[in-house]
Amino acid sequence: MNFNLEEAIEVLERAPRSLEQLLSGLSEGWLQVREGDGTWNAAEVIDHLLEAERTNWIPRISFLLREGAGKPFPPFDRFAHLRSGAAGGLESKLQEFRDIRSHNIDLLRALVPPDTDFEQTGRHPEFGEVRLSELIAAWAVHDFTHIAQIVRVMAGRYRSDVGPWEQYLGILKRR
Amino acid sequence: MNFNLEEAIEVLERAPRSLEQLLSGLSEGWLQVREGDGTWNAAEVIDHLLEAERTNWIPRISFLLREGAGKPFPPFDRFAHLRSGAAGGLESKLQEFRDIRSHNIDLLRALVPPDTDFEQTGRHPEFGEVRLSELIAAWAVHDFTHIAQIVRVMAGRYRSDVGPWEQYLGILKRR
Repeated sequence: MNFNLEEAIEVLERAPRSLEQLLSGLSEGWLQVREGDGTWNAAEVIDHLLEAERTNWIPRISFLLREGAGKPFPPFDRFAHLRSGAAGGLESKLQEFRDIRSHNIDLLRALVPPDTDFEQTGRHPEFGEVRLSELIAAWAVHDFTHIAQIVRVMAGRYRSDVGPWEQYLGILKRR
Repeated sequence: MNFNLEEAIEVLERAPRSLEQLLSGLSEGWLQVREGDGTWNAAEVIDHLLEAERTNWIPRISFLLREGAGKPFPPFDRFAHLRSGAAGGLESKLQEFRDIRSHNIDLLRALVPPDTDFEQTGRHPEFGEVRLSELIAAWAVHDFTHIAQIVRVMAGRYRSDVGPWEQYLGILKRR
């Protein structure tokens, strides 16, 4: 096990600023590109991250602490952001992600002080019993997976433009 | 073709700052993790990006403009940074990447003004004839591929820590 609360928070703190530096001010060509029908462009990935801040991570952590493994978490709808219409431009969403994440890290620290038992469990509606440490670790890795998704989606825009370099650019081999 | 010089520059401008926000101040656990023997940790990826700024992209662009397709580019050693010992800590490397990239974007603008023929070709030692547009597009996608690599390598540190979430976190399925 490598999980450590402070190191997980390091990741959670950095992801919004890193994405802001990557995406803020980019041309629509980069922000709108997607890998095909039903896949997300960069702006929709930010919508998904925002939705998860609002309805997934902190609500589940607090549910687990309150209910233990007796009652399953309310399910999280991974596609809710696509229906909610997500008003506002990308710049305001990036700012909102930074703000809500910062607030959620404060809540996380309040909910799980250093002497917390990270082995305590809750009940995931699909996975069954899960540990508090797994839920927090998944939150951090969720940031990584969506940063990787965003750069992969944008890279795909130049798939044919790089000509023979495609073979050396591993990101173009993944979808 | 989606290539456009200004849009490629947008990516080249943002990558160093995005990586700085992601990596600066992280614990050694995140910076030292690798996927196995012979693979690169985050710090070594930054060394590689620095080496490519010094010896690959701008030198090849200027060689192509000067020599056309008559003479092959001098080969670029993708592993040079592992032997050069790369002095300095990560913070100074991130700063150096930002500075050298900014300088190289200035050089790029000077070398290829807007009326440049981006279809003109050079000779790659391995691929043969390549277009100027392909070389510049590959530079931008090279940033994306290494950002994706860094987050994938770091995510792998929590592979077993996320428990059953592994199946929803696509980044953990890639190496």
